[in-house]
Amino acid sequence: MSTLEQFKNYVKKINDFEHAAMILNWDMETKMPKKGAKAHISALTTLSSEAFKMSISGEMKGYLDTLSMPDEWANLDEISRKMVEHIKEGYEESKNIPEDLYARYVELTSTSQNVWGEAKHNSDFETMRPYFEEMISLNKTMAQYIDPNKKPYDVLLNRYEKGIDEATITRTFETLKKGVIPLVEAIKEKPKVDESMFKGEFSKEDQEKLGYYLLEAIGYSLEAGRLDESEHPFTIGNAPCDVRITTNYDLTDLRSSAFSILHEGGHGLYEQHINPALIGTTLNTGTSMGIHESQSRFYENIIGRNKHFWMNHYNKISEIFPSYKNVSLEAFYKGMNVVQPSLIRTEADELTYNLHVIIRFELEKALFDGTLEVKDLPIAWHDKMQAYLGIVPVNHKEGVLQDVHWAGGMFGYFPSYALGNIYGGQFLMQIEKELGGLDTLLEKGELMKVSDWLTEHVHTFGCMKAPMQIIQDACQSHLDATPIIRYYTDKYTKLYNL
Amino acid sequence: MSTLEQFKNYVKKINDFEHAAMILNWDMETKMPKKGAKAHISALTTLSSEAFKMSISGEMKGYLDTLSMPDEWANLDEISRKMVEHIKEGYEESKNIPEDLYARYVELTSTSQNVWGEAKHNSDFETMRPYFEEMISLNKTMAQYIDPNKKPYDVLLNRYEKGIDEATITRTFETLKKGVIPLVEAIKEKPKVDESMFKGEFSKEDQEKLGYYLLEAIGYSLEAGRLDESEHPFTIGNAPCDVRITTNYDLTDLRSSAFSILHEGGHGLYEQHINPALIGTTLNTGTSMGIHESQSRFYENIIGRNKHFWMNHYNKISEIFPSYKNVSLEAFYKGMNVVQPSLIRTEADELTYNLHVIIRFELEKALFDGTLEVKDLPIAWHDKMQAYLGIVPVNHKEGVLQDVHWAGGMFGYFPSYALGNIYGGQFLMQIEKELGGLDTLLEKGELMKVSDWLTEHVHTFGCMKAPMQIIQDACQSHLDATPIIRYYTDKYTKLYNL
Repeated sequence: MSTLEQFKNYVKKINDFEHAAMILNWDMETKMPKKGAKAHISALTTLSSEAFKMSISGEMKGYLDTLSMPDEWANLDEISRKMVEHIKEGYEESKNIPEDLYARYVELTSTSQNVWGEAKHNSDFETMRPYFEEMISLNKTMAQYIDPNKKPYDVLLNRYEKGIDEATITRTFETLKKGVIPLVEAIKEKPKVDESMFKGEFSKEDQEKLGYYLLEAIGYSLEAGRLDESEHPFTIGNAPCDVRITTNYDLTDLRSSAFSILHEGGHGLYEQHINPALIGTTLNTGTSMGIHESQSRFYENIIGRNKHFWMNHYNKISEIFPSYKNVSLEAFYKGMNVVQPSLIRTEADELTYNLHVIIRFELEKALFDGTLEVKDLPIAWHDKMQAYLGIVPVNHKEGVLQDVHWAGGMFGYFPSYALGNIYGGQFLMQIEKELGGLDTLLEKGELMKVSDWLTEHVHTFGCMKAPMQIIQDACQSHLDATPIIRYYTDKYTKLYNL
Repeated sequence: MSTLEQFKNYVKKINDFEHAAMILNWDMETKMPKKGAKAHISALTTLSSEAFKMSISGEMKGYLDTLSMPDEWANLDEISRKMVEHIKEGYEESKNIPEDLYARYVELTSTSQNVWGEAKHNSDFETMRPYFEEMISLNKTMAQYIDPNKKPYDVLLNRYEKGIDEATITRTFETLKKGVIPLVEAIKEKPKVDESMFKGEFSKEDQEKLGYYLLEAIGYSLEAGRLDESEHPFTIGNAPCDVRITTNYDLTDLRSSAFSILHEGGHGLYEQHINPALIGTTLNTGTSMGIHESQSRFYENIIGRNKHFWMNHYNKISEIFPSYKNVSLEAFYKGMNVVQPSLIRTEADELTYNLHVIIRFELEKALFDGTLEVKDLPIAWHDKMQAYLGIVPVNHKEGVLQDVHWAGGMFGYFPSYALGNIYGGQFLMQIEKELGGLDTLLEKGELMKVSDWLTEHVHTFGCMKAPMQIIQDACQSHLDATPIIRYYTDKYTKLYNL
C-alpha cells in the first residue's frame, strides 16, 4: 500500500468517528429521549477525543511529513495535495493542545449546552455564569497553545473564518454600522407596516408542509437530507450525501419556521452541492462559517424576502393557509420585510440583524481583551442594545442567554453571521453582473440559474479554497461591505419611501 | 488508579463505541436519508471492529487475569464480580476463533443477508442454498472453536440462551406440541370468528396516537425511550435510560401496529427497568433472547389480548376510530384472538405461533446433526407444515425463505420465541399465586402491580442472573411448559366453547 493509501485509510477512521459523533449530536438535539443525555455525552467525548488523538498522533505526523517530501508531493493530484495541507493545518493547530485540556473542553461543551437549555428557560444567568467563565478561560488557554504569537480572539476568529482578524472585522463592521443605523433610524420615523398576516394559528403539520414545499422550491434534496424539529434550528451533516436541517415551529407566527427553513436550506444546499470527489478528504464541508452564512442568508433574505421569488410561490401559501386568500402579495411582501428593532437575534429583520451581531462581536472582543468580566455581561448587553437598537430586554432569556453559542464555547463565531451578509451582497452584485437582475431571474422562475452560479463559484469547492480566495475568484474583490449596503439602501428606500 | 478503575475505564470506551453504533443502527433503520448509507456502514464497521479488537486485546486479558486473582477478587463487590465474569465469558468465546474465519463469517453474513432479500422476493431457494450450506458449515466450525467438548448446536443455542441445551428444548417442546396441537385441531372444527373490525382505513397519525396511548398504559417511559417507524419493528437501546422501539403501520389493518407496539413495548419495559447501578458494566441488558421474548410476548398476548385489559382501554379505540362505536368489546376481544393456521410466523396467532417455532427448531436440529441436508430443506419444511399446521406454502417466499435468521447465520435463535411463551406462562402462574387472578388485577386497573412484580423478579437483574436462575428464583421451578398450556387451554376453551 502506498503512503497516500495508508494516509487515506487512517483519515477514513477519523472520519468514521466524526460521522458517528455528528449523528449523535444530531440525535441529541432532535430525537434523544431526555434521560439519554449522559450516554450520548460520554460517547461523544470518547469519539471526539479518539479522533483528536489520531489527528495529532505520531502516525499522522509520519504521513504528513512523508507526503510533504518533494518526491511524494510531485506525485500527488490537486485534491490530495489540498487534503494533506488541510489536515496539516489542523495538525499544527492542535498538536500543542494537551489531551486532557481538550477532553475537558469537549466534556464542558456538552454539559454546558445541556445546562443552558434549562437556564435559558428559567432566565437564570447565575447558573450559566461559571460555565461561561470556564469556557472563556479554556478558550483563551487553547488559543495560546494554538498560536502563542497571536491575540487569543484572533486565533478563535480564524477557526471560523480563515484569514480574518479582529482589526479587519472592526473596520468592516464600522462601515456596515454606518450604512445600517441611518436606515433603521429613518424607518423608525415612518408609519408602521402591517405584519398581522403572519400572526394567527398555524398547525405544525401545515407549517411542515410549507417547509417541504420551500425546500423543494430551492432545490434541497431529501434523498441526501432531512427536516426535523429542534429547539434552535441548525444544519449538520456529512457532505454531500447526508446533510440534515432542523427548524422550530412557532404555532402563532408563520415566519419563524418558513424563514428558518430557507436559512438552513441555504446551508444545506451549500453542503449538498460540494464536489463528491472530496468525500473522505476532510475537504467536504463549507470552507468557513462566514461563507456558510452567506449562503443561508442569501436564501433566507436575498431570495426568500424578495417579492419576485414569491410571485411563483405565493399561491402555495394560501393553498395551505386559506386566511392568506385575503392578503395581497404586496402586503405579504411588505409584512415579511418589516424593520423593527427587537430583542431576539434569530427573529430580527434583515437590517437590524446586523446590529445584533455587531453587539455580540463587541462584547466578545471585550471579554477576551479583559475589559469586560462575565459577571458584568448582562449590563454590557443592556447598554449595547440601548445604544444600537434603542430597546432592552427585561430578562436574560431574551437577553444574554438567548443564543447557545457562548454556552457551546463558540466565541469568535458570531461575526460570521454579518460577514455572511457582506459576502452575500458581493455574490449578488456579481450574479447580477453576469446573469442580469435578480428580480427578473426570480420572476421568470430561473432560481436554478442562481443556484448553479453559487454551486460553480462557491459550493463545489468545499474547503479547496479559503474564504478570501472564493471572494477573489468569484467577484474579483476583497471583503467589502459596500454591495450589501447598496442592496439594503435600494430595497428599504423603496419599501419605506425613504 | 486501581486495576478495577482502569478496567472500568477501558470497558467504558468499548461501551461508548457500542452506544454510537447503536444510535447509527437505529438511525439507519428509521431516519437516515437514502444517500447516507455508505457513510453509516463505514462508521459502523469501524466502531464494531474497534470494540471487538478491544474486547480480545492483551490489555483486556491483563485486566481479567489480574481481577480474577484471589486477592483482587476478594475485594470486588457483587456487581464487579459479575462484570468480570460476564466480560471474561465473551473474551473466552471470541479469543479462540481464528481471525480469518471470523472475517469470513462477518463477510458471509452481510452478503448472505443481502442475497436473501432478492432471493426471497423471487422465491428462489437455489440461489440461497450455497449460502445456507456455508453458513451452517462455518457455524459448526466456529462452535468447535468456542467449545470443542459440546455439540455445535448446543454451543449455538447457548449464545442466545445461556444454560440451555438441545435435549431440554426437545423435551419441553414435545410437551408444548402435545398441548397446542389438540387445541388448534379442535378450533378448526368450530365456526369462523369475525375479525373484520380490524380491517379498514386507519391513518398513520391515528395509529400513532393509539400507540402512544398503549405505551403509556403499560408504563413505557418516553423520557427514556421513543416510538418510531421502520420496515420491521425492533427494540434497540442502552438500558435503562435510552431504549427505543419502532413499529410499522399497516394502513388497512389496525392489529399490525397495535400489537407490535405492545410487543416492542414489552422488550422496552424490560430494558427500562434494569437496575441503573448496572450502567457501564455490560450487564445492563436483557439476560437472554428467551427472557426478552417472555416480556414482549407477555405484554403482546397475556396482557394485550386479554379482555380485562381492554375493559379499561376500549373507549380510547372508539374515541380515535369512531367505526369501533358499533363493535362490542366482546367482539373486539374475540376478533383479536382468532386462531387460524397460516403460513407466516410473524403474522401467526398466539397459539399456532408456537408450532412455527417448533418446526424451525426441529429443522435446525436435523441440519446440525446431519440427518437433513440443505437441499432437502424445502421438502422437510413442507412436511412439517403439513403435519403441525395442516397447510403448506406454494412458494419459498412464504415458506423456507420467509425469515432472515438463517440467512444471517442466526441458527439457535428461533427456539427463544417459544421459550419466551413458556417462561411467560411460568411468570403468569407465579403472579397469580402471589397477587391474585390476572383478570381481576387488569379489570381493577392494577397492571402496575404486575409490572412491578416483573421488574422485581426479572427486569432489574439485567445480566446479573442467567435465565434459569431467573426462573428458579422467581417461580421456584425449572423450565416448564405446563403453565402456558394451562393458560392456552383455559383461554381458548372459553373463547371457542371447546
